[in-house]
Amino acid sequence: MRQLETPQGNYFEDFSLGQVFHHGVPRTITEADATLYTALTGSRYVLHCADTIAKECGFQSMPLDNFLVFHIAFGKTVNDISLNAVANLGYAEVDFKQACFAGDTLAVTSEVIGLKENSNGKNGVVFVRSTAVNQKDLTVVSWIRWVMVEKKIPHPPSMTPVIPDYLGNLNAENLAIPPNAHFSDWRDHYSDNQYRFDDIEIGDNIFHRDGLTINQSDHSLATRLYQNNARVHFDQHAMNTSRHGKRLVYGGHIISLCRALSYNGLGNAVWLCAINGGTHANPSFAGDTIYCQSEIIDKRVIPSRDDVAMVRVRMLGVKNDSPDNMEFLYRQDAGRTTYHTNLVLDLDYWVMMLR
Amino acid sequence: MRQLETPQGNYFEDFSLGQVFHHGVPRTITEADATLYTALTGSRYVLHCADTIAKECGFQSMPLDNFLVFHIAFGKTVNDISLNAVANLGYAEVDFKQACFAGDTLAVTSEVIGLKENSNGKNGVVFVRSTAVNQKDLTVVSWIRWVMVEKKIPHPPSMTPVIPDYLGNLNAENLAIPPNAHFSDWRDHYSDNQYRFDDIEIGDNIFHRDGLTINQSDHSLATRLYQNNARVHFDQHAMNTSRHGKRLVYGGHIISLCRALSYNGLGNAVWLCAINGGTHANPSFAGDTIYCQSEIIDKRVIPSRDDVAMVRVRMLGVKNDSPDNMEFLYRQDAGRTTYHTNLVLDLDYWVMMLR
Amino acid sequence: MRQLETPQGNYFEDFSLGQVFHHGVPRTITEADATLYTALTGSRYVLHCADTIAKECGFQSMPLDNFLVFHIAFGKTVNDISLNAVANLGYAEVDFKQACFAGDTLAVTSEVIGLKENSNGKNGVVFVRSTAVNQKDLTVVSWIRWVMVEKKIPHPPSMTPVIPDYLGNLNAENLAIPPNAHFSDWRDHYSDNQYRFDDIEIGDNIFHRDGLTINQSDHSLATRLYQNNARVHFDQHAMNTSRHGKRLVYGGHIISLCRALSYNGLGNAVWLCAINGGTHANPSFAGDTIYCQSEIIDKRVIPSRDDVAMVRVRMLGVKNDSPDNMEFLYRQDAGRTTYHTNLVLDLDYWVMMLR
Repeated sequence: MRQLETPQGNYFEDFSLGQVFHHGVPRTITEADATLYTALTGSRYVLHCADTIAKECGFQSMPLDNFLVFHIAFGKTVNDISLNAVANLGYAEVDFKQACFAGDTLAVTSEVIGLKENSNGKNGVVFVRSTAVNQKDLTVVSWIRWVMVEKKIPHPPSMTPVIPDYLGNLNAENLAIPPNAHFSDWRDHYSDNQYRFDDIEIGDNIFHRDGLTINQSDHSLATRLYQNNARVHFDQHAMNTSRHGKRLVYGGHIISLCRALSYNGLGNAVWLCAINGGTHANPSFAGDTIYCQSEIIDKRVIPSRDDVAMVRVRMLGVKNDSPDNMEFLYRQDAGRTTYHTNLVLDLDYWVMMLR
Repeated sequence: MRQLETPQGNYFEDFSLGQVFHHGVPRTITEADATLYTALTGSRYVLHCADTIAKECGFQSMPLDNFLVFHIAFGKTVNDISLNAVANLGYAEVDFKQACFAGDTLAVTSEVIGLKENSNGKNGVVFVRSTAVNQKDLTVVSWIRWVMVEKKIPHPPSMTPVIPDYLGNLNAENLAIPPNAHFSDWRDHYSDNQYRFDDIEIGDNIFHRDGLTINQSDHSLATRLYQNNARVHFDQHAMNTSRHGKRLVYGGHIISLCRALSYNGLGNAVWLCAINGGTHANPSFAGDTIYCQSEIIDKRVIPSRDDVAMVRVRMLGVKNDSPDNMEFLYRQDAGRTTYHTNLVLDLDYWVMMLR
Repeated sequence: MRQLETPQGNYFEDFSLGQVFHHGVPRTITEADATLYTALTGSRYVLHCADTIAKECGFQSMPLDNFLVFHIAFGKTVNDISLNAVANLGYAEVDFKQACFAGDTLAVTSEVIGLKENSNGKNGVVFVRSTAVNQKDLTVVSWIRWVMVEKKIPHPPSMTPVIPDYLGNLNAENLAIPPNAHFSDWRDHYSDNQYRFDDIEIGDNIFHRDGLTINQSDHSLATRLYQNNARVHFDQHAMNTSRHGKRLVYGGHIISLCRALSYNGLGNAVWLCAINGGTHANPSFAGDTIYCQSEIIDKRVIPSRDDVAMVRVRMLGVKNDSPDNMEFLYRQDAGRTTYHTNLVLDLDYWVMMLR
């Protein structure tokens, strides 16, 4: 009886500069994805909930939440890029170019834009730029990501490292906003009479109060919905012998929980334009309760628009303790950030906010 | 760094008689809400399951289950009305006026119709009438509700209490039934050959047999689907120091489980017309198994209709013991009802039943 | 107060040869069923995920996964056939005749085709042929099933047993393949560049690597979605006193998990045509991690088709241990199969595979 090998993901040696992956399983996003996302996160951003209001604002129908779009697009890349990842090191320049609607189909490609062997000879860093296009071949979202990947056969570094440049902060002026959308008729009560752009200032800090406890099934359902097949989220038998002995919660689920919690304070931050980057400082597990705090780190008016403007938010996710009780969430020391052991997320994003 | 306050809900002092709240986050109900409701409850009422039969009965498509409609509409009111509730004291006159279909958008308002300070000076009772309208501005459902709400600053009662009148039992003759619906062609097997109106009598008692164990994720998903953001359902970290040390299951989820269990016996009670009121006598937690028993407390023919009639049901929900084994579920003593400690729900509703 | 009996399912005496059951609650399958199925299983078979590719292959839209179709159709039969089953003994000739699309409504009937009393006088075996038709009255799937059912009143065997013939292996040449579907334009990357028909041989063995841990809510949601109302899956209070003290996972959920895991290796086995039979050798419970291994037991070209062909797969599901570590999954001894105590599923199916 012949034993047929199953695909086990790519190792460091399998990647080469300029190589392009056409990821498998293009995905049609449905109304049900949006509904399930609400059930999984409790998100209340109204553009994604009310068809009437979406249309009043010039959308053809309810657009999908760009966080959901990102998770689905990201999930497509796991099988080729990060199945053998020792660590998901970072992502940047997550740039949303096109609104998504129920019925749209995403196909995702990734190009290898950098490679760097580690001195230990056991692994290296792979840098990719991934791009999700819709059925009209329009770019929906693109991003850069770097992961540390095992070598199939350990060997000392032998190639010249190529490390791509990327922006730590996307230029707010270049970010896409939905072209025909207009928000002048927005009524305050749509989004619970919350802050508008002019009410907040750079340096403002918002603790979003509510907490969400992660159930085992919640994050499993979410991660399977995104067809993200990283083993660490699903296989308890294998995880029994891992460092924590538990399944890890997909970092994207934490992002979505924090964003959902942010509604309470940032309910008028209606449209995610970009993610500059994120750090998942500590792992999360089922049973953890997630809290969220946001810092306003930048704001920009958009020339010729008086209905909306851009806000840059640092979204901090904390587990099992209220930011109110904690001495610090992070410390900045000589350019180095030290995180509290309860801090699970430090995300930097640009969002369009109602004026 | 300025600390921006997040909305923390209204306190007793924030309410005034005649005040109207336009609740945030209008909600488009989709086919996926209906499907997810099936997955969350196991409900089998066939009008909400089979497009073919719904159309045969004169509906444009499968109507949404009014229990689901109620939970979504109710969820909208939590943020303004009951975020600081010490207790959800009661609801009444839940009157369904208009069938809902996938694609309909609900917007909900509440008017303060009563206020009564408690003698302890710490809190008071707020009475509201809430109304959900669809995108055509037609009333879908309205109801009365009263909650005990904290005062921001304790002070002795100083105002004349206003307590609204309400009906403990809606007049069956005034209840709305779907205008073009007709059920003469209904075939017995559609709903598992169950009792019809003429088979049951006032005083009949039906134990529905099946049991449903609540998983932590089930009730969390349901309550997030309804965008009900009461903290007690979601935040285990905060609940650790609460009386029970556990997250509470949203009472509406118990109602839906009991209604789903009721199919086995009341499968021909096809259309919820009204809820007269309900008592959530004891809390439910993940891990509890719910059983249900129904008493027929009234029945009325509808003049000019020989296909359907009205039945008033007292639906009793019990946890972790079978009503068959229990000496009593409740006791009536000098006009006072005492509930068994395992009784979690006592709901009084009017339902349209096939003749 | 009259106690009205609720339907408690049929007992052995309630069945007679040739009897036909029109099962209750016909069911419209929606896009949301497909999406939820993805979230529950993590399945990635691309025909059911990407509208663009489904259309490119000649489908009107994404067809539903036949495993999902089967679970929904099967669920309909439980109330009449197996509510009092002592054991679900087997099924065979599961034959998919017609593709299903979102919006289709399934109605299911079963005919009693065999009866055999057991010598213990306490129960007997009921054989039924079940058929699910769509709203155009076209057969979608039919199958044979036999269950051991309690007698209402024990009595010694008194009737001549009738045991129907059935095929242990459906004839590959008679199986339906979607009539207008064509796969010549399929691009390798759609399904992660996996094996095609000509890459695999009879006798090949594929261990699919990934593992999926079952959460309590996962299988409850799935089984309720299928409206399968067997008590053993839902009622922990009743199961406390059962042999295992735990709720049993619906065998169909295990089938779906194994099929989802099989993507990794059999991603080009795109269309389930038939299930020859299955053995659920050991029960599964929440907390179990499921692994899967497939054996190729037959393959057939389809005359006049060079884009697709037929493969017969023996899909083996294992819990809580990797097939890689196990000495054996099953043993064949003098025509008798002995299963490892960790083996939970042995399923024999015909699938259409890309050439």
